[in-house]
Amino acid sequence: MNGAEGLIRTLLACGVDTCFTNPGTSEMHFVAALDRVEGMRCVLGLFEGVVTGAADGYGRMKDRPASTLMHLGPGLGNGLANLHNARRAYTPIVNVVGDHAIPHLPYDPPLASDIEGIARSNSRWVKTTKSPQAVGADAAEAVAASMTAPGGSATLILPADVAWTEGGAVAKPLAVRARRKVDEARVRAAAEALRKGAGALVLNGPMLREKALAACGRVAAATGAELLCPTQMNRAERGAGRVNVDRIPYVVESAQKRLAHLRTLVLVNSKMPVNFFAYPGKPAVPMAEGCEVLTLADLEEDGVDAVQRLCEVLSATQAPKVEDLRRPSLPTGAVTLEGIAAVIAALMPENVIVSDESITSGRGLVPATKNTPPHDWLVNPGGSIGFAMPVAVGAAVACPDRKVLCLQSDGSGMYTNQALWTMARESLDITTLVFANRTYEILKGELRNVGAGEPGRKARDMLEIGRPDLDWVSLAKAQGVPGVRVEDLDSLARELGGALREPGPRLVEIRM
Amino acid sequence: MNGAEGLIRTLLACGVDTCFTNPGTSEMHFVAALDRVEGMRCVLGLFEGVVTGAADGYGRMKDRPASTLMHLGPGLGNGLANLHNARRAYTPIVNVVGDHAIPHLPYDPPLASDIEGIARSNSRWVKTTKSPQAVGADAAEAVAASMTAPGGSATLILPADVAWTEGGAVAKPLAVRARRKVDEARVRAAAEALRKGAGALVLNGPMLREKALAACGRVAAATGAELLCPTQMNRAERGAGRVNVDRIPYVVESAQKRLAHLRTLVLVNSKMPVNFFAYPGKPAVPMAEGCEVLTLADLEEDGVDAVQRLCEVLSATQAPKVEDLRRPSLPTGAVTLEGIAAVIAALMPENVIVSDESITSGRGLVPATKNTPPHDWLVNPGGSIGFAMPVAVGAAVACPDRKVLCLQSDGSGMYTNQALWTMARESLDITTLVFANRTYEILKGELRNVGAGEPGRKARDMLEIGRPDLDWVSLAKAQGVPGVRVEDLDSLARELGGALREPGPRLVEIRM
Repeated sequence: MNGAEGLIRTLLACGVDTCFTNPGTSEMHFVAALDRVEGMRCVLGLFEGVVTGAADGYGRMKDRPASTLMHLGPGLGNGLANLHNARRAYTPIVNVVGDHAIPHLPYDPPLASDIEGIARSNSRWVKTTKSPQAVGADAAEAVAASMTAPGGSATLILPADVAWTEGGAVAKPLAVRARRKVDEARVRAAAEALRKGAGALVLNGPMLREKALAACGRVAAATGAELLCPTQMNRAERGAGRVNVDRIPYVVESAQKRLAHLRTLVLVNSKMPVNFFAYPGKPAVPMAEGCEVLTLADLEEDGVDAVQRLCEVLSATQAPKVEDLRRPSLPTGAVTLEGIAAVIAALMPENVIVSDESITSGRGLVPATKNTPPHDWLVNPGGSIGFAMPVAVGAAVACPDRKVLCLQSDGSGMYTNQALWTMARESLDITTLVFANRTYEILKGELRNVGAGEPGRKARDMLEIGRPDLDWVSLAKAQGVPGVRVEDLDSLARELGGALREPGPRLVEIRM
Repeated sequence: MNGAEGLIRTLLACGVDTCFTNPGTSEMHFVAALDRVEGMRCVLGLFEGVVTGAADGYGRMKDRPASTLMHLGPGLGNGLANLHNARRAYTPIVNVVGDHAIPHLPYDPPLASDIEGIARSNSRWVKTTKSPQAVGADAAEAVAASMTAPGGSATLILPADVAWTEGGAVAKPLAVRARRKVDEARVRAAAEALRKGAGALVLNGPMLREKALAACGRVAAATGAELLCPTQMNRAERGAGRVNVDRIPYVVESAQKRLAHLRTLVLVNSKMPVNFFAYPGKPAVPMAEGCEVLTLADLEEDGVDAVQRLCEVLSATQAPKVEDLRRPSLPTGAVTLEGIAAVIAALMPENVIVSDESITSGRGLVPATKNTPPHDWLVNPGGSIGFAMPVAVGAAVACPDRKVLCLQSDGSGMYTNQALWTMARESLDITTLVFANRTYEILKGELRNVGAGEPGRKARDMLEIGRPDLDWVSLAKAQGVPGVRVEDLDSLARELGGALREPGPRLVEIRM
């Protein structure tokens, strides 16, 4: 058994059975070993941003890592933006990055680069494995590192000669350290603070799942606390029958308004809310001055247990308020943001996974959909665009029995448009809705927000992506995905409804 | 004047008048300042790999830097692969990377990342500018650093508040340190070695321009030395009336065969040849055992001066052998690699710039085109794919009076397919020829070369990019570039000929 085979067998032993790949020469022994080992599903991406984004979507849905396979420093570089988003989502991922054979490196061949240096920017664990004997143990360590709370990327660098040399050893999985319980004083402090009123729990990570939310809902019922999550949340289980959590708005003034009356924020597996960007003369955080911020459970601690104990301290036994099932009727006529949101809310199938990078086009979507049947909502907590289609790929691979709805703004979608091809190749059950406003609309607002005034001609040229207009139906066709363009709400309802009913990848472009 | 304006005015003062951009919120003051300052041409890319590849193509053609504008660590990450290639081409580039406002960073907002760490992997100079007063001096230093021999990327990180704060200062250009002259002993040693026969000059960088090659040709005429360049050359001026230089083949056995009889290699502004990858049981370098390798001028030294002095020592006054003008007749019939090469050689217009990422499909192209009218040939010395279309964009922006012929393999082209949109938006005079073999063909050979055997089904799936076939005509149409598909040499000749005669962007897809 060579090192590559030892690696694959160890990954499988550790429960990592999916690999999103974009291999090159240094990874050929890994690729060849796939045919000697049963059980590793490999999904090819035509660009590494697809590979890492898919691993993010997969890890969020499975709560365990997929692996990626990338080609030296430049391959990893291409995957870096979606690894950044995955870092902010605390998604477990095991990256395998091929390198030159160790004796070849002193010659500084063309593709040599500082892979460890590049990896460190987004990985919590980085190691170059030095021998086929070590590769199994290193891989087991990588898997455990990726899953240790709060989760993240572990990057294992695999020199080509380590992959091809005999002596590969398979290692057993390592135990993953459990989340620490918080001490009683913090539970009592949180209870005391919330009892005063005008408080909120700020939730992220594991707190946004149905059961954890139910416990938070009991706290809310007992104390009047509101339930919030940061703009940069990772995955929420929401919809009818579940406890709703309000996402803090992106726009600073809206966030300030939303939080203005709150005197206490209690963080549970969430960082303190912070404005996405700084603006001249505006505060860095959206809370009102004097608002107290307590940590009930930090990112590594057991927030679910802490909130259950909080319920006990508060004697919070009252059933939580859950959302009822309510859908809007289908609107008709010209395209408006409210109209699009209503169409989506009217049509979202039960159990759908939404991968949301609708940006300015989707600002009304979250409230509009909270009473639809139960579903998962994935957003981009890192802010690096080109997120939604790759994440949809990974979610669809992770959950083949569920429909994925990908809400994709046009400017962002272009970064990783190659995801369409993987959707087609793997016949993934993804409906992609492209919001074609032909502009980096958010930047026009940002230009004003940062006090840079109204854009002149040259500035506008950098913010508008029409001239030529992108034709998403052709872009999808080019990569094997059937697509259609709609220009009013009636045809949107018809085409989106059809796409959501049919299995397999479809694309609907809304001209806005 | 704020910091952003001070930066732009300094870049202009230093001769940097072109900016390839993909801005975000943190760069809005830079964008806004463009309308207050005359003279900076801004070219938008829909993905940062286009931005950095374009800067590479521009810098190679102009021998001075363009600037780039990118958005924090993830934006730079997206640009990293083509910055890697530019590093290997020693292309001067000034990257401007926006960052969060300095007081915002302690809050660890979503897009915060280790920009300096990411930049260091491919930049020879990295600095975060700390105040609007310093931005001018820092920018002037960046420009000089990018142009100091052998040339490379300088990355200036611009925090948003430095950009928006008043007090921006414009700095004057700094003198760029001239290349060091080599000492006489090295010239004499090279002369002595070459006089023994069975020698070659190995040339790169400035040595591959017409005048430098003419001097090398005199050395060749006087000593019988052959003229070679590494596989990883950056830009060659070649064609009829010029001295030809032979590129060392990529495939190890071909390279070994090409160099087998040589006893001496004299490096002039070139690194020692090295095989692109290591293979089990094969040597790391292609030279025969016992072949002596001398350095006449290293990468930072004045190779042109050294070869002129070598001519004097050798009394090499004989006119160099130059290529005569000879074109093949147009072949007809089914597509073959030789046939495609002949069509290209028959049609290449005078003064064309070729951006070549044809990979396996283009292995016969270099010899087939050496007798066509004078032209420039750009290749990828870094090996990170997704190179040719962005580089073509930059070359076309740099040389608006010249036709650019982009030779693009399909697998590689997908990485940065967004370059097509910039070609359309800027009406760039680029003909892109896509070699659609629907496979990572090179990897099939590499799988055998690394001794991993014949690919099984799963391995083949990772190497083949058909299923679904990519439709390049639709991909071009989606982004505003007219395209056509051809399936035989007759239609290739007709369509390529037409595209090369017409101004503006065109795409021809050859089904292979």
